Amino acid sequence: MRKGEATRTAILERGVQLATQTGLEGLTIGRLATEIGLSKSGLFAHFRSKEALQMQVLDAAAERFVDEVVKPAVRELRGEPRVKALFERWLGWAKSNSGPGGCLFVAAAAELDDRPGPVRERLVELQEGWLDTIGIVYRTGVDEGHFRADADPGQFTHDLYSVMLGYHHAWRLMRDPRAEERARAAFERLLSSVRAHRRTA
Amino acid sequence: MRKGEATRTAILERGVQLATQTGLEGLTIGRLATEIGLSKSGLFAHFRSKEALQMQVLDAAAERFVDEVVKPAVRELRGEPRVKALFERWLGWAKSNSGPGGCLFVAAAAELDDRPGPVRERLVELQEGWLDTIGIVYRTGVDEGHFRADADPGQFTHDLYSVMLGYHHAWRLMRDPRAEERARAAFERLLSSVRAHRRTA
Repeated sequence: MRKGEATRTAILERGVQLATQTGLEGLTIGRLATEIGLSKSGLFAHFRSKEALQMQVLDAAAERFVDEVVKPAVRELRGEPRVKALFERWLGWAKSNSGPGGCLFVAAAAELDDRPGPVRERLVELQEGWLDTIGIVYRTGVDEGHFRADADPGQFTHDLYSVMLGYHHAWRLMRDPRAEERARAAFERLLSSVRAHRRTA
Repeated sequence: MRKGEATRTAILERGVQLATQTGLEGLTIGRLATEIGLSKSGLFAHFRSKEALQMQVLDAAAERFVDEVVKPAVRELRGEPRVKALFERWLGWAKSNSGPGGCLFVAAAAELDDRPGPVRERLVELQEGWLDTIGIVYRTGVDEGHFRADADPGQFTHDLYSVMLGYHHAWRLMRDPRAEERARAAFERLLSSVRAHRRTA
């Protein structure tokens, strides 16, 4: 990693933290410069515009998500073990991001859903990539005979996303001490609805 | 309704609209005054502080939610018909609030979850009231013998909330044309998991 790249990575890491607290809209080149003690002009040379900064911060968060959630999960056995690993890692991500700010993607979704433009488009692209990944991992379970072939991967993906949004809401806003237990029960119910041979608990 | 009350209602209605677009943090007495063409001092006399305004806007949105979702639903037959009506009305609310800004509560949840204070507390109270309402309606289904007595109303409530958050995300951010169909399928799966006598589709 060259020096410039290391600097850029460190800046973006701080940008992700800041964005989860201020919202993406609150993330400006000037504010980030103040936070990290660099000159605004120096930071401007890196990112050129507020929108470019916001998009690169989203990319940096997505890269970390891939490293922490997707890569370890796809090292697990294909099928149900891999789907379970994906859920566990994702839950771990949501928990570790439960300090001030929470998950950047959940915050950005609420913030950007009605703000057309390149930043919203980038967020949608990243989310589509993640939804596709879930669908691909789900299909390994069909291939392995763990999941029903007639169940719709798109529905599974949608439902798994709902489980995680429900967890995020119950934990981050409501401080429900049973949030994780509820999310695990919901995931278990989802899994049992797609299993090729239903097991009774 | 006295004249002062009518004015207040109209002001708060506009406040709800504005808050869904700017976020609750963006809703200031000055900004709302400009929007409705009243003097800032006049509006200040009504609300005294930004926080009081924000809390009353949340209350006004909750009152509308009760009128549009809860009251019509509880006029339906106890048990499964009432739970279904609650879901249909809630979905209708989420759809009708799918113009610029979307549902104030979903936006406020992401915005306020890491901002301690009276506005966050009010939001949590209102959400607790709504979660309790779902639980109460669910229990009429247990009493009527529609739902299993051993199923946890808290889990049902959590899961129904997750279904609606998933719909909101799929529709508002992802513009998924199948968002509603997915949400209905998820609700159907949830219902069938709590029915006293499982029906096969």
